[in-house]
Amino acid sequence: MPANRQFRLAERPTGAVDDNTFHLVTNPAPEPAEGEALVRALYLSLDPTNRIWITDMDQYMPPVQLGEVMRGYGIGQVVASNNPALAPGDLVNGVLGWQDYAIAGPRNPMQKLPSGVPIPLPALLSVCGATGLTAYFGLTDLGAPKAGETLLVSAASGAVGSIVGQIGKILGLRVVGITGGPEKCRHIKEDLGFDAAVDYRAADWRDQLAAATPAGIDINFENVGGAIMDAVIGRLNLHARMVLCGMISGYNEGDHKALVDITPFLMKRITLRGFIILDYAPRFAEGAMQLAQWLLGGQLKHQETIVDGLENAPAALNRLFDGDKLGKLMLRVAEPV
Amino acid sequence: MPANRQFRLAERPTGAVDDNTFHLVTNPAPEPAEGEALVRALYLSLDPTNRIWITDMDQYMPPVQLGEVMRGYGIGQVVASNNPALAPGDLVNGVLGWQDYAIAGPRNPMQKLPSGVPIPLPALLSVCGATGLTAYFGLTDLGAPKAGETLLVSAASGAVGSIVGQIGKILGLRVVGITGGPEKCRHIKEDLGFDAAVDYRAADWRDQLAAATPAGIDINFENVGGAIMDAVIGRLNLHARMVLCGMISGYNEGDHKALVDITPFLMKRITLRGFIILDYAPRFAEGAMQLAQWLLGGQLKHQETIVDGLENAPAALNRLFDGDKLGKLMLRVAEPV
Repeated sequence: MPANRQFRLAERPTGAVDDNTFHLVTNPAPEPAEGEALVRALYLSLDPTNRIWITDMDQYMPPVQLGEVMRGYGIGQVVASNNPALAPGDLVNGVLGWQDYAIAGPRNPMQKLPSGVPIPLPALLSVCGATGLTAYFGLTDLGAPKAGETLLVSAASGAVGSIVGQIGKILGLRVVGITGGPEKCRHIKEDLGFDAAVDYRAADWRDQLAAATPAGIDINFENVGGAIMDAVIGRLNLHARMVLCGMISGYNEGDHKALVDITPFLMKRITLRGFIILDYAPRFAEGAMQLAQWLLGGQLKHQETIVDGLENAPAALNRLFDGDKLGKLMLRVAEPV
Repeated sequence: MPANRQFRLAERPTGAVDDNTFHLVTNPAPEPAEGEALVRALYLSLDPTNRIWITDMDQYMPPVQLGEVMRGYGIGQVVASNNPALAPGDLVNGVLGWQDYAIAGPRNPMQKLPSGVPIPLPALLSVCGATGLTAYFGLTDLGAPKAGETLLVSAASGAVGSIVGQIGKILGLRVVGITGGPEKCRHIKEDLGFDAAVDYRAADWRDQLAAATPAGIDINFENVGGAIMDAVIGRLNLHARMVLCGMISGYNEGDHKALVDITPFLMKRITLRGFIILDYAPRFAEGAMQLAQWLLGGQLKHQETIVDGLENAPAALNRLFDGDKLGKLMLRVAEPV
């Protein structure tokens, strides 16, 4: 069996992930038992929620335990199989973990990817994967958009935000994005077609926000939290919808509180809905087909920041939090054979 | 024209309403112009939201201005009319204000009450009026109840809460109410049929809450806010709904903040919906008919605390906040002739 490098959780970080957070160990890859397959990791998705998984807090699945392989979602390729449904060479997605080789089987089911679709693997992991599905269902289902309304999306140049804004344009919304720095502001306006951008690193970001939303905000697709979220809530309209997808600004603070004054939610009859994409699993095929159609039709652009090498996973994760990436962040562990 | 006593807002209170909050002035009742009618106030509804109306804060309608007659909803009787649709003797409801006589007309429309319905006036202002409609639409529409779920309602012996809980029982929910003191706890269980009561004045109220909701809480009908709300949120289940109807515990603090940690709303995918009954105006007839049917069928009990005399309005309002009343609080200004 080939060597299998694994990142195992060594200690819970108090801020950003550092050299002490994980142990990199090497073991022989496991032997697939009856009904199982051995899967080589190709691309691993790096997402803000990964940071939540290593915090000891009440969350939507059990936190990764000390000593366990770091949880990670990705695309892999079957290299050996004792399961007739999976043949060597097949591409699959699922929970691979931060390791070279994972076992697909009844305890860790993986889904075979359709073959022959003219979409590159990174796009299958981003715009046509969980990222795009998060944007799609969060906006179209929970956001209840009506053409002409104003959509505000934070982390707008990020994996989810960039797709949310583009879908908003497809649906006829006025789309305003919040992102950091002039280049990302240019990117979301000129490359992605947003109507306006707010640079949260600028001293006058509150004025920018007000100027960009003259008719207030009808839908807030929230990815960030903190002071920016508070300012956005202050501009929500009567009967606005707030899709709470994430609050990345607090994730490095561990089990912190995200305190929000809910008085405006009463006075303005606002709906706040927390949201994890797993709840939409029964509708993934529907969403993926729509996203693929828009992608192949040239209506959705996607951008990936790809870091090479499993060994760089911990350092790469921190790039989600310091703004040093564009679009979807992922790790290339290997290319398919 | 008869004498018309009026409470006019003299200063904005910083806590409870007191002798300086309103001026009681007496003027001749106004003469109804063409298309208008003069209405004698019979019953005036006293509600927590009245306290919001005299706070200078962002709210769902303009606050009452200094010098204006205090806003108040109620039932009255037409005594003179220059409008063919309203005849002397007709009963109407609408915004009468804290005064003996009001003008119904294009600028202040009032609705004629159906005659011949065997429901007493106080019940038309409580269980079959805005109070009951608030309970009905808040629970059945925003709460999205499913039989067998656990409903938690705060201010459970109050006007809205007592109806919410009873509708919950009609719909097959497990109903838990929070109220103050042993007698009110007994009342909601024995008289109104709640499954359990939590006495927020007891030192062990948190333990009582946990014991009363062994399967967590699926619907929180929130009327109170503050520390009790925080504890309730801590027990909300995956995909729970929180109907934000009011936060009375903060109203005497004026324009204060109701800070809530929204992290659980993300992790547990909870829906929070602020709610004002005025949004349901197009469906009032539907709701009122259902409430009247339940009332006449003996499935809904109602309780009113009726204070006599317009002159007692300011002191009566404070009884909403010190817990010294049961069910719907209202003022009897006069009886119909």
